[in-house]
Amino acid sequence: MPDAPLNGGTTRVALIGFGTVGRAVAKILCESTDKSLRLTHICNRNVEKKKQPWVPANVIWTDDVQSVLGSHVDIVIELIGGLNPAEQIVRSALQAGKSVVTANKQLIARHGTDLLQLAAKQGCHLEFGASVAGGVPVLPAFRTGLCGDRLHGIAGILNGTCNYILSRIENARIPFSEALEEAQARGYAEADASEDLDGGDARAKLAILALAGLHARVAPESVRARSIRTVDAVDFDYAAELGCTLRQISRADLKGDTLFADVGPCLVPTDSPFGRVQRNLNLVVTSGQYGGDMAFLGAGAGGDPTAVAVVSDLKFVAEAIGAGAGKREVPSNVSAPAISSDFETPWYLRFFVRDRPGIVARLAQIIAAHHLNIDSLLQKPGFDKSSLPFVITLEPCRDAMLHPALEEMAILDFSIRPVLSLPILRQS
Amino acid sequence: MPDAPLNGGTTRVALIGFGTVGRAVAKILCESTDKSLRLTHICNRNVEKKKQPWVPANVIWTDDVQSVLGSHVDIVIELIGGLNPAEQIVRSALQAGKSVVTANKQLIARHGTDLLQLAAKQGCHLEFGASVAGGVPVLPAFRTGLCGDRLHGIAGILNGTCNYILSRIENARIPFSEALEEAQARGYAEADASEDLDGGDARAKLAILALAGLHARVAPESVRARSIRTVDAVDFDYAAELGCTLRQISRADLKGDTLFADVGPCLVPTDSPFGRVQRNLNLVVTSGQYGGDMAFLGAGAGGDPTAVAVVSDLKFVAEAIGAGAGKREVPSNVSAPAISSDFETPWYLRFFVRDRPGIVARLAQIIAAHHLNIDSLLQKPGFDKSSLPFVITLEPCRDAMLHPALEEMAILDFSIRPVLSLPILRQS
Repeated sequence: MPDAPLNGGTTRVALIGFGTVGRAVAKILCESTDKSLRLTHICNRNVEKKKQPWVPANVIWTDDVQSVLGSHVDIVIELIGGLNPAEQIVRSALQAGKSVVTANKQLIARHGTDLLQLAAKQGCHLEFGASVAGGVPVLPAFRTGLCGDRLHGIAGILNGTCNYILSRIENARIPFSEALEEAQARGYAEADASEDLDGGDARAKLAILALAGLHARVAPESVRARSIRTVDAVDFDYAAELGCTLRQISRADLKGDTLFADVGPCLVPTDSPFGRVQRNLNLVVTSGQYGGDMAFLGAGAGGDPTAVAVVSDLKFVAEAIGAGAGKREVPSNVSAPAISSDFETPWYLRFFVRDRPGIVARLAQIIAAHHLNIDSLLQKPGFDKSSLPFVITLEPCRDAMLHPALEEMAILDFSIRPVLSLPILRQS
Repeated sequence: MPDAPLNGGTTRVALIGFGTVGRAVAKILCESTDKSLRLTHICNRNVEKKKQPWVPANVIWTDDVQSVLGSHVDIVIELIGGLNPAEQIVRSALQAGKSVVTANKQLIARHGTDLLQLAAKQGCHLEFGASVAGGVPVLPAFRTGLCGDRLHGIAGILNGTCNYILSRIENARIPFSEALEEAQARGYAEADASEDLDGGDARAKLAILALAGLHARVAPESVRARSIRTVDAVDFDYAAELGCTLRQISRADLKGDTLFADVGPCLVPTDSPFGRVQRNLNLVVTSGQYGGDMAFLGAGAGGDPTAVAVVSDLKFVAEAIGAGAGKREVPSNVSAPAISSDFETPWYLRFFVRDRPGIVARLAQIIAAHHLNIDSLLQKPGFDKSSLPFVITLEPCRDAMLHPALEEMAILDFSIRPVLSLPILRQS
């Protein structure tokens, strides 16, 4: 009779969503010697096809979410992903007085503040440590080891697909399209990888990090996302001349009432923590007023690492429930800063031109007219004159200063591709 | 009347020990807008000389520990360090029903299990997140983001003094003695730096990490500690030939009922996370059954970063007390494994000899007689024949296999310094 209340000390857990992460979570729970957590329900569509022999016989398999929410479970693990029906399930669970653990980044990025308030009102817990950077324990650090600091900045490599592709181009100098196909073949990228490549995935994660770490409410859409599709293998050659490589970086800096935020490809020093991240690993660097910079590196995706984050949250919530800590307070210190992408930074401008005399002079003229300063001009030999890549780097200036100059450059008739402008991150 | 019970929601905190870290903790508490923590006492010898204008007037300054323990404080922060009188103060505080936050690595390394049991018996909390790696939030991760995993290995750069010295020799090829003097001049090493250089400090930290992360009770003295004093600038030249550099590495691997543990200089790949740690930073890498490897990097010492760890623990304990979570359970899953330093690893053997014919043949003979396999022989040109350094690397073998061979080598008359044998860590 799994639906009857159990004896004290045991927390009943229902799993909704039995994909890769769900199976890994169930496996950890079933293999654990800790009997204080008891898996009571596994809920999924076509559940008959999902059954696993290693799941104890007293676990209820069902495709009926309502029966789970109406049962005596204490904690619901939501691993369906996406907004619909996940949002409604999480709201219903909280309204039914059940705590929720989720790995759903879209849900938390969009509705995190509301859902946290609902959870607090209901005396429940809502944890989402697995929603960013998989198993890398940065979100839990915000409520434990870093909570004594006052954080003002977060920067990270948050999308494993982009990092796989960029580090492949870096190491093999293959074209972007080939690196993407390889990532798809190896299961590191979906058939439609737009969310990853164009920054949608990373900015949802950045919004969650900003909420949990900087106490700043940020709509994901308000963060500028630049695609990595514009990056060419030749950019790694020119970046190397500058001691740099390219990575998709997500960053948020809180300065007064403004949150400076950006997601997209950046130049980073090759020997920096960011420059060294290979394959599909994730790295998050937090900057605090007292503790300085802390870096967290690990597997940002995959069933098992993500499941560790889910089970860790589960244990935290179970312990809090066990301790009678139902009176979690409504987060009161969440601000709603203005969002800006107007970072002051040095810039890398890469041109592809049909070569002819006077091109550099014309570009230098535009740059000077906008009161920008050229730091270096790089042109490697050996390229076809009809499609010649070269680079101008600029001394630090605000994005808003650069933008009008880029607009003038966009209409020059010798350009055969749009100008690629990338921030150069000298720090970290 | 600071000694009268306060209204609910405020946790009273006493600070015992007002050195660098104590001042930084007080500063964070006094600058915080969070009024749920209230500093009520600061206790130190010669307290009159310690008073600071930025501390609120209602904080009691005292040199009388007993008056603090007899007051209504909820949490005692012990920042005296050392075993005596810190141990007695912590025991007395717990016996008086007060929770304790401490940064005291010697105390926790030696008495952690006992003190945790005492705390549990008294319904109190004992946290020590600042006792290892300063502000790097690895200990808190064991109770949050990593608690869903089953960890089997921990390795780290845990001593900033050693890392400062080794990375200075690496970068400037200065003699060990010069690097040490520089570290002392800059405040990175004490006048008597034996605890740091000879591994005593790091193995105390390793014992704490093993307790909190691997649930293994380890007496610090039972862990082999090798000194970094034997490292010479020339070792960095030879290590570079192998793609490696040298770092003081502390590692613990749980295999069945045995904990393999070692502290001391090792060769690590230059482009590995360990090889890249510069200056006095700390790095901890945890290895879990499900989540794989996670790396934590940051400032391992210094007043402010360490204070972040203390204040983070303080907030955790205050929240637990506020939630009525007094019934913390006695840690029941702590094992007492056998401790061994008998790792199987490739080895780096460095000789300083008075050159003459037949030396390599003699060494090769000893190595073969012990069934060990030479992987490479390195001899760089340009050294004085009367004090010639050269290197033999061995294929992986257990420490116990190597040891008798080293004993035979120790008595060879052409050696003018003891043979230096260092593990080569190829992983991570």
